[in-house]
Amino acid sequence: MAEIMKVHGSVISTATQRVLACLNEKELEFEFIPINMAAGEHKKDSFLAINPFGQVPAFEQGDLKLFESRAITQYIAHGHADKGTALVIPGRQMATLSVWMEVEAHQFDPVASKLNWELIYKPMFKIPTDNAAVEENEAKLAKVLDVYESRLAHSKYLGGDIFTLADLHHLPNISCAMKTQVKKLFDSRPHVSAWVADITSRPAWSKVVAMGK
Amino acid sequence: MAEIMKVHGSVISTATQRVLACLNEKELEFEFIPINMAAGEHKKDSFLAINPFGQVPAFEQGDLKLFESRAITQYIAHGHADKGTALVIPGRQMATLSVWMEVEAHQFDPVASKLNWELIYKPMFKIPTDNAAVEENEAKLAKVLDVYESRLAHSKYLGGDIFTLADLHHLPNISCAMKTQVKKLFDSRPHVSAWVADITSRPAWSKVVAMGK
Ligand SMILES: N[C@@H](CCC(=O)N[C@@H](CS)C(=O)NCC(=O)O)C(=O)O
Ligand SMILES: N[C@@H](CCC(=O)N[C@@H](CS)C(=O)NCC(=O)O)C(=O)O
Repeated sequence: MAEIMKVHGSVISTATQRVLACLNEKELEFEFIPINMAAGEHKKDSFLAINPFGQVPAFEQGDLKLFESRAITQYIAHGHADKGTALVIPGRQMATLSVWMEVEAHQFDPVASKLNWELIYKPMFKIPTDNAAVEENEAKLAKVLDVYESRLAHSKYLGGDIFTLADLHHLPNISCAMKTQVKKLFDSRPHVSAWVADITSRPAWSKVVAMGK
Repeated sequence: MAEIMKVHGSVISTATQRVLACLNEKELEFEFIPINMAAGEHKKDSFLAINPFGQVPAFEQGDLKLFESRAITQYIAHGHADKGTALVIPGRQMATLSVWMEVEAHQFDPVASKLNWELIYKPMFKIPTDNAAVEENEAKLAKVLDVYESRLAHSKYLGGDIFTLADLHHLPNISCAMKTQVKKLFDSRPHVSAWVADITSRPAWSKVVAMGK
């Protein structure tokens, strides 16, 4: 399958960044097709034909059309096991990796996304921040990060000894949150803080950050 | 690996039901260990040692400890490809299946869980329902089900031609929602309605429903 991979998205979209980070880790070539979200391009028929939910990112390779960032990263990681960073672990250890991917999706992302929405995107769009929601979600995030602190005290990365999708999926929301008051919740937990410093300094991620500038 | 699989959970917990449905589809033997949530057993140290987030279900097989319902179902489905219903599809089609599993997790579940919380669990715990939240989430669910209606018009199941985890993961929330005013949103869409009737009448699911009675 030599067809070029195409990513439709926006460099400031966290979900798009998740896919870009994965492609960079895998050292794969791809075509990036910018979607002008301010102009509502993601709600036009041509885009809805790839992602009926009208959200970025969307992905194409030949006649294969995919959406949902974490489905795309899994397709890329499983399909190119021999290239770049492994990102997935074959066999029984995949079960533990899978647990931490689900933790990101169900425990971390809803809370972190909400905080980034309130503290970064709302101010950007000149919508007032809901401070009660910030307080509630900071308390929730603190509890989630307590669990991460214990996990990272005896495992270098969330999924095991190596950097995998379980860590990578966190990068966009963590990078955003580190620009807000929420940073203190990461900084005050030594293992979490070391993990954040480690994963955010990966060259594959720096390339994504540079694209957004 | 002949060690017996143990599921710790509650038969009225939707996340636990997801795992039980999977084990039944796979025709696998397992031990069910009821967790008394009313007594706070899921917040005790012995349980937190399996799931540090203090939520059901949790899963053990020998020294392997897993949590997050969808990580458990994937472990079971991938590990027992030869038994019962396939539930996963090898090769390139897995990417599409993966998209629809992510859709369940990120588009359907947050909205459906919130509606079930407001309309079933809050009344059960004698907490007043937030009607504005119900209205908002009904509108969101209607949009999600519009996408499902299109998908199911040309695909018998969400992931493809056969029943898979992408469908199975919906069962607990759909069964709950069908007991509420939200039922109308499913009934008014012919392909969605046929799909709901099909998947909820599977014997593996009926066994889960019977356990809850
Ligand atoms: N669960 C989806 C989320 C995608 C998403 O929320 N994308 C945002 C940008 S980060 C978007 O397109 N928002 C516009 C909208 O929802 O209308 C994924 O991981 O791909
Ligand atoms: N994402 C988790 C959700 C688990 C969950 O929310 N379990 C509920 C019962 S359905 C629970 O244990 N609630 C108690 C609590 O959160 O304290 C999964 O899929 O396993």
